[in-house]
Amino acid sequence: MTSYETALGASTTDTITLLGHDLAGDVMGTVGFGELAFWLATQRRPSPGQTRLFEAVLAALADHGFTPTAIVSRLTFLSAPDSVQGALAAGLLGGGSRFLGVTEDAGRFLNAVVKASETPSDDVGWDELALETLRKQGKTRIPGLGHHVHKNGDPRTPRLYEIAEEEKLVGPHLSLFAAIGRVHPQVLGKTLPLNGAGTCGAVLADLGLPLELLRGFALLARTAGLIGQLAEELRNPVANDIFLSVDSNTRPVAPAEE
Amino acid sequence: MTSYETALGASTTDTITLLGHDLAGDVMGTVGFGELAFWLATQRRPSPGQTRLFEAVLAALADHGFTPTAIVSRLTFLSAPDSVQGALAAGLLGGGSRFLGVTEDAGRFLNAVVKASETPSDDVGWDELALETLRKQGKTRIPGLGHHVHKNGDPRTPRLYEIAEEEKLVGPHLSLFAAIGRVHPQVLGKTLPLNGAGTCGAVLADLGLPLELLRGFALLARTAGLIGQLAEELRNPVANDIFLSVDSNTRPVAPAEE
Amino acid sequence: MTSYETALGASTTDTITLLGHDLAGDVMGTVGFGELAFWLATQRRPSPGQTRLFEAVLAALADHGFTPTAIVSRLTFLSAPDSVQGALAAGLLGGGSRFLGVTEDAGRFLNAVVKASETPSDDVGWDELALETLRKQGKTRIPGLGHHVHKNGDPRTPRLYEIAEEEKLVGPHLSLFAAIGRVHPQVLGKTLPLNGAGTCGAVLADLGLPLELLRGFALLARTAGLIGQLAEELRNPVANDIFLSVDSNTRPVAPAEE
Amino acid sequence: MTSYETALGASTTDTITLLGHDLAGDVMGTVGFGELAFWLATQRRPSPGQTRLFEAVLAALADHGFTPTAIVSRLTFLSAPDSVQGALAAGLLGGGSRFLGVTEDAGRFLNAVVKASETPSDDVGWDELALETLRKQGKTRIPGLGHHVHKNGDPRTPRLYEIAEEEKLVGPHLSLFAAIGRVHPQVLGKTLPLNGAGTCGAVLADLGLPLELLRGFALLARTAGLIGQLAEELRNPVANDIFLSVDSNTRPVAPAEE
Repeated sequence: MTSYETALGASTTDTITLLGHDLAGDVMGTVGFGELAFWLATQRRPSPGQTRLFEAVLAALADHGFTPTAIVSRLTFLSAPDSVQGALAAGLLGGGSRFLGVTEDAGRFLNAVVKASETPSDDVGWDELALETLRKQGKTRIPGLGHHVHKNGDPRTPRLYEIAEEEKLVGPHLSLFAAIGRVHPQVLGKTLPLNGAGTCGAVLADLGLPLELLRGFALLARTAGLIGQLAEELRNPVANDIFLSVDSNTRPVAPAEE
Repeated sequence: MTSYETALGASTTDTITLLGHDLAGDVMGTVGFGELAFWLATQRRPSPGQTRLFEAVLAALADHGFTPTAIVSRLTFLSAPDSVQGALAAGLLGGGSRFLGVTEDAGRFLNAVVKASETPSDDVGWDELALETLRKQGKTRIPGLGHHVHKNGDPRTPRLYEIAEEEKLVGPHLSLFAAIGRVHPQVLGKTLPLNGAGTCGAVLADLGLPLELLRGFALLARTAGLIGQLAEELRNPVANDIFLSVDSNTRPVAPAEE
Repeated sequence: MTSYETALGASTTDTITLLGHDLAGDVMGTVGFGELAFWLATQRRPSPGQTRLFEAVLAALADHGFTPTAIVSRLTFLSAPDSVQGALAAGLLGGGSRFLGVTEDAGRFLNAVVKASETPSDDVGWDELALETLRKQGKTRIPGLGHHVHKNGDPRTPRLYEIAEEEKLVGPHLSLFAAIGRVHPQVLGKTLPLNGAGTCGAVLADLGLPLELLRGFALLARTAGLIGQLAEELRNPVANDIFLSVDSNTRPVAPAEE
Repeated sequence: MTSYETALGASTTDTITLLGHDLAGDVMGTVGFGELAFWLATQRRPSPGQTRLFEAVLAALADHGFTPTAIVSRLTFLSAPDSVQGALAAGLLGGGSRFLGVTEDAGRFLNAVVKASETPSDDVGWDELALETLRKQGKTRIPGLGHHVHKNGDPRTPRLYEIAEEEKLVGPHLSLFAAIGRVHPQVLGKTLPLNGAGTCGAVLADLGLPLELLRGFALLARTAGLIGQLAEELRNPVANDIFLSVDSNTRPVAPAEE
């Protein structure tokens, strides 16, 4: 008979363990939530510095106001107020390639370059690798480069570098991304900011989190944000106004092919 | 024209704010993830003690092994590995009345009693209120009382009371729930444990989190757990074996009504 | 070892059956989709009249323009165009108590009355039962009575009665609902229309479909409608305009409790 | 002010239209559900033959027994029986690249070849195009070629070709796919069946349905199947047994990296 192995939660009549530790005695009251999320994802307990940097990423991604995901969650809560899980799930389903995907795309892109290369020993070396990467990429966008609003620079980016430096956690992904930030004007002929979502991807990759799930951490952050959105909707509802503003501007037209 | 107000995320070309604070300067690197989730939900920054107690609740609810939600997330990831958001959303959709609902049910139940009563001044008073509540309830189950596995006591319960006492955060919901734990044998004729999920509901209500969203905090905790499940699935896959074990034990039968 | 029984799809190396029939030979090319959906839900093949009435209900519920569910599906497709399943699932998650729930609520409400009563033999008897029901209900709304737009009558309601009469499928649920339509002014002191969604619930209950899943048929109809919405979004996109109209009318305010 | 155009559902106080037609008078009781779904997706009313072929595809994809999507829907219903919409949505979220994606992948693949080529005038011409396609493809799998169970042939495939021929609806996608079925042994050195899901993709593409949404039609079919699964679960529950069989075979192991 197949057995299903897990190192996560387990319980007997008298005990509950999580990640091999006594949940009540060793985890609750001791381990913060960001630390726990990291630990669950890697099965490796993060250092305080890793936790701090990871939580900075989660803060950077938690809420960006009335994004499509936030609007979706509020409208779903309006339609089905009996199902908080449905409103959160609906919001998360917008976490795909376009709005929350940059974090994962940047992490994976940088990782592919890093894995295929020798690790440079200094900034000059990283700049060379970045130049080579940009030239290979041609007209294809580098994930994480450019921002439609923060054209002069995304304030989250220097802050993430600052924290990573303070915690001595600048690894190859952040190094390569910084080099791309320095040298891309030579190749592209214009200066673009390194966006925060892309920097988050570089950080998560440097922290050793699983690349296949980088989007998952954006979604974890966003779950907290969406609960905030629903709490605000309860206090100061706007979903019905959003619906009515669409409804009242609807214009029936003839079908396309008749 | 209607305007849509929010106190959560906002940005201009040069700034990003969250909850009225500069995101990069005042939140990232300073505010932990549990603290931020609390703040987003209440628009009130929690004290360190409130954060610690809240994070203990999140740890208590993060992962319970191969629950239906975990199995669902892994099977969905097996079927649609291109959509991490779909696998997480599918798992969260199991967070309804039966498996993750106890937290919310207990919080709401206790709150209804607390709001309808004078606040007792000591344990004797709480015991009287609890007795009256149990008698009114008749044969209807009290949410949070009893556990199908931890029949001799759920180890999370005393730990949550311990932390709440250390942080001086025992409020009316925890007081009433403790009294129910003391006096129910007089009414029910048997001794049942106060379960951890119900105690989490009492804690969240005492922390002043919105009652309509108590289930949401269980879902936030579970999002971290589900990422852990998917990470483990990548490392040591079992979803296909689960599927095959169902498939190989399928028995076709005649339709019900033909 | 437990075995898992099913009368639905089954296959061997050389055969595929559905509901005990050879899928290729006896179902494909012969059984319409509405007929098949009814058959799958009841494991009883519907008559042509039952199929016609059932498909009329599905048509009545398929699409109502820019409802919250349609907006949600389009916004999710905008954010995550790589996941059609996510956009459809997000739209369906709005099918809860408020927007798509009337069908189920009306069916269940009527069924509870019907099951608790003798079946009247004529309209006079149904009117008496309806009066008694309305008086018991007091100020609680009768599900399916009233419509916020079609105040003079929902055009779908008489059409459903007409088809049910043509097919000789008016059963106790439709009879009671019609009687409620006739007598409620005596009790409520005003005349309200029987809405189409509620009539759909009465029809589905009379067709013997499972009450616990009446909402499911509204969701099946809506799945076809949401595919229509996504197809139109591909041809004539509006989701980004909806998002921008919200975004451009956002007003940051101070947090609630600081 | 932006207006949002739609040719789908629209209503005024006294009228409801769908696709430019009076819903009650011209659609309900007249238009079958498969026909309506096709019409909604294309804004072009299908002929009876197109409807028959389209409904044969939906029947082919509606239910395949205890697939991961069916298990997921049942487990979610077990956990959250209050939310039918959540159980259906969770099931649909498994409709991604692996389990329901073949239909879309085959349709898109065939379409890319067809669009890049002159239309051959006879089978010999299609065989040449198929050979060329197979050679270009090298070791990359052709979507829709091969089946892990129906190794001697998928019974749905000849039936779909038969219906398409009867209705004179064999178009370039079906022609190319048939040619691939004839000539691939010359290139691959082994004979594989054309699977039913892939043939469905060829049919849907020949019917002119939007390629970006081919997966959506598999999901529409599956929605009917999942309602059947939930109805069967209500009548003859197995989800809890599935859960317990996993739970009882769980084996706690040490975390990966400690």
